[in-house]
Amino acid sequence: VSKAVFCLAELATGTGARLVGDGTTPIRRVTTLEEAGEGDITFLANERYRPQLASTKASAVILGAGDLDACPTNALVSANPYLCYARVSALLHPQPSPVPGVHASAVVAPTARIDATAEVGPLCVIGEHVEIGAGVVVGPASVVQSHVHIGAHTRLVASVALCEGVRIGERCLVHPGVVIGSDGFGLANDGGVWVKVPQLGGVVIGNDVEIGANTTIDRGSLRNTVIDDGAKLDNLIQVAHNVSIGAHTAIAACSGIAGSTTIGRHCTLAGNTGIAGHLEIGDDVHFSGMSLVTRSHAKAGSYSGNLPAMPTRVWRRVIGRIRHIDELFQRVKRLELAWGQNSHARENPDD
Amino acid sequence: VSKAVFCLAELATGTGARLVGDGTTPIRRVTTLEEAGEGDITFLANERYRPQLASTKASAVILGAGDLDACPTNALVSANPYLCYARVSALLHPQPSPVPGVHASAVVAPTARIDATAEVGPLCVIGEHVEIGAGVVVGPASVVQSHVHIGAHTRLVASVALCEGVRIGERCLVHPGVVIGSDGFGLANDGGVWVKVPQLGGVVIGNDVEIGANTTIDRGSLRNTVIDDGAKLDNLIQVAHNVSIGAHTAIAACSGIAGSTTIGRHCTLAGNTGIAGHLEIGDDVHFSGMSLVTRSHAKAGSYSGNLPAMPTRVWRRVIGRIRHIDELFQRVKRLELAWGQNSHARENPDD
Amino acid sequence: VSKAVFCLAELATGTGARLVGDGTTPIRRVTTLEEAGEGDITFLANERYRPQLASTKASAVILGAGDLDACPTNALVSANPYLCYARVSALLHPQPSPVPGVHASAVVAPTARIDATAEVGPLCVIGEHVEIGAGVVVGPASVVQSHVHIGAHTRLVASVALCEGVRIGERCLVHPGVVIGSDGFGLANDGGVWVKVPQLGGVVIGNDVEIGANTTIDRGSLRNTVIDDGAKLDNLIQVAHNVSIGAHTAIAACSGIAGSTTIGRHCTLAGNTGIAGHLEIGDDVHFSGMSLVTRSHAKAGSYSGNLPAMPTRVWRRVIGRIRHIDELFQRVKRLELAWGQNSHARENPDD
Repeated sequence: VSKAVFCLAELATGTGARLVGDGTTPIRRVTTLEEAGEGDITFLANERYRPQLASTKASAVILGAGDLDACPTNALVSANPYLCYARVSALLHPQPSPVPGVHASAVVAPTARIDATAEVGPLCVIGEHVEIGAGVVVGPASVVQSHVHIGAHTRLVASVALCEGVRIGERCLVHPGVVIGSDGFGLANDGGVWVKVPQLGGVVIGNDVEIGANTTIDRGSLRNTVIDDGAKLDNLIQVAHNVSIGAHTAIAACSGIAGSTTIGRHCTLAGNTGIAGHLEIGDDVHFSGMSLVTRSHAKAGSYSGNLPAMPTRVWRRVIGRIRHIDELFQRVKRLELAWGQNSHARENPDD
Repeated sequence: VSKAVFCLAELATGTGARLVGDGTTPIRRVTTLEEAGEGDITFLANERYRPQLASTKASAVILGAGDLDACPTNALVSANPYLCYARVSALLHPQPSPVPGVHASAVVAPTARIDATAEVGPLCVIGEHVEIGAGVVVGPASVVQSHVHIGAHTRLVASVALCEGVRIGERCLVHPGVVIGSDGFGLANDGGVWVKVPQLGGVVIGNDVEIGANTTIDRGSLRNTVIDDGAKLDNLIQVAHNVSIGAHTAIAACSGIAGSTTIGRHCTLAGNTGIAGHLEIGDDVHFSGMSLVTRSHAKAGSYSGNLPAMPTRVWRRVIGRIRHIDELFQRVKRLELAWGQNSHARENPDD
Repeated sequence: VSKAVFCLAELATGTGARLVGDGTTPIRRVTTLEEAGEGDITFLANERYRPQLASTKASAVILGAGDLDACPTNALVSANPYLCYARVSALLHPQPSPVPGVHASAVVAPTARIDATAEVGPLCVIGEHVEIGAGVVVGPASVVQSHVHIGAHTRLVASVALCEGVRIGERCLVHPGVVIGSDGFGLANDGGVWVKVPQLGGVVIGNDVEIGANTTIDRGSLRNTVIDDGAKLDNLIQVAHNVSIGAHTAIAACSGIAGSTTIGRHCTLAGNTGIAGHLEIGDDVHFSGMSLVTRSHAKAGSYSGNLPAMPTRVWRRVIGRIRHIDELFQRVKRLELAWGQNSHARENPDD
């Protein structure tokens, strides 16, 4: 990551924050409240770090209006300090520009069309009829199979594999080890023997999508697997065939989405969420970590399904009891009936 | 994926389906009921799509006998329409043939034996004493370390890593990012410090096995890790050292099988199943998604272990209560004893 | 893996075990009790294999003093036979030495400093200002981006991706498909649109760390992600930004650790453990498989959170009941109150 120098007033202008203090202060780096020194800007976006504000040595702090009085130095005041920090950080630490051209060690098919401003790194393989847009970076050791389309300013960091016909939009960021367009897991059963169902669909990824390291996205069986604009996927995620992920949905690491499930816009999946196949998840639906989702959830809201860890000796008793919970309900019902406490049973006749 | 043209009668012959209608109809493509047009064949294998049958524009539909009356066009009638669709699709969309030869950019050890009909793609590394059979495809940027054996017509799509001595059978399909033969996780403890146990076993994979993107299969510690004929593994699966997976078992994505566990034939593991080490799973055993398997299951059947997601506010109460379930059992027992409802307690003296 | 020949007395000396029998016996291989023959050493470290001891054909057996009487051949007696086996195995089957030099097909930046005793394999990419220490092996098709530091005798097996600025210590072992230094999953929300937070920290890995196939370790957001000496990570593990993993902690496959969590020394995480972000896990804490950890655990001990698999028909009833467990507590409380069994309710007023 390269570095730039700004004066504080430029950062205020660039982010829309309100400047309090000396706008000519030079800023070279963003860092934590604790580590910051002269030339650094830092931020306060989480109240657990508020005690560190008074003693920070930073040249400036990004914070909310409510923390301004306690700030010992220059400030950028923002309604969303964490967002302001993200924008300041992007200004101070911009991605390096592509170095246009194709490395001599890359193997490029003659029919591939590579924009003159794009960078194709060493030891890449670019297949027939591939289209690579302006300002794209194909990092080292990546494989781009035939008929793939990569939109302008998208960046494959390194060792990415894009299978035949995959389409990726503009300004995407794809981390090492990602595989896009591998066959979906389609199998028909012939008397106990699995017969492969050819996977004929593609993968279509919108603009501004980020895909984390070693994540896998399978091609559709007949239609496409689709990831819409602004969706963000963390590492080691499985996206099965025919899945559709809505715009601006964020999925944390180790999650898996089974085939033909549709997820709406602005959803969040915490780490290790598993969503079964053929479900419909609406917009603004949120799942907590390690949830198993077995039903469609059209309605916005928060859903959870997991059993948080407890001391193993407690857990042993709990698990031993859970297996007998049905019997416990029956015993309670017998007590209620026997002793006249049967008002509940009358109200819940199916119980 | 390449394409072929057949007439409908040829597809009936090729799949064993019964032809109803005009056998000379040319068929170029398989697609969905909804999208199909002239020259397309489609299929009805899931009753949720039955309403689309009447209005399909397909030139032919694969379906069961019971749906024939409602079919507005030519038909292939099959007892297993989904299987028939798989076979028709394979006929219409065959894998491209290998392009025999070794790409000039590949690095091949002098002692490697590569069949003249095999294809070794650009930027592959082929180690000493490797054996590559007839019609094999080693896709771009794959690494095949020394003493690996790859059986006839097996295909490594791209960026696959096969470690020393791995043996793969015939007609296997290995997707990008797969690692086979990495060291198992063998550690001995020396007063708190982990000492590596050398992993000296191999990996032996049968015929007709498919292995999904970024799946990892560790070599055995002393014996081999074994995956038998026709087993199908989805993406991002972990197979630990000394595991044995029986023939025609299918494992969905994100599952993990710990060391020295044996899984029988014709099993299915739904996504994110975790199986502990040193277990014996019999034939025809099926696990639902995100199950944790902590015991051997010799008997065929279906097993589950997970807590499906519910609204978070409900889940909070449930989880809070589950921790106290042991106490609840004791309270119910006290009620039963106190009020003479102790017939249950007598029948279950250990409760 | 190469092989060496020792006489039994040399193995006793090399491991500190007590020799019983003929020290001149030549030993060429370590294998199982069942498969061992002349020239083989085997071990008994798990009582399930004790019945095989009497009939072993091995030239020597590693075992505890208590099993010596039943041993039909030479023995190495050790207080920790499994550890002794690990050490004997390392002597008999040492890693091959690096073949010093850079393969002609590797692409190496002019500013990279590669020790003369290091091996850089075919089709590797080594970036600007990379430092590679003595005896390092960079296996085929690996990508080492700029400013990476690799300590002496560390081995990247193959197809590893190390992103900019990553630092790895000495004697580490990194398996194929590993990605280290990918961006953390840092996102700020701007009215529903995710804005990337630049990930400016690094990754610092200590000495004697092993990292399994396709595991991903993200770089820190502002500080470093840290993995301390002797930690062992299995396959397909996710380590998020700013995580710190203490020395000699072992993490089994498919586990995930969310951002900014600290794990102490000598911990163990069984397979598929998920740890939420911003937690503090102390030393000597142990989690069983598929645990979800949502709270800090400062205290040494064993924790579990999961619902082991049971027959699906039992599970259906259990899950149906669990959702109503809160209601059951209330029904029991009503029974207690109604019938005077309210001693419990008085003791637990919040229940």
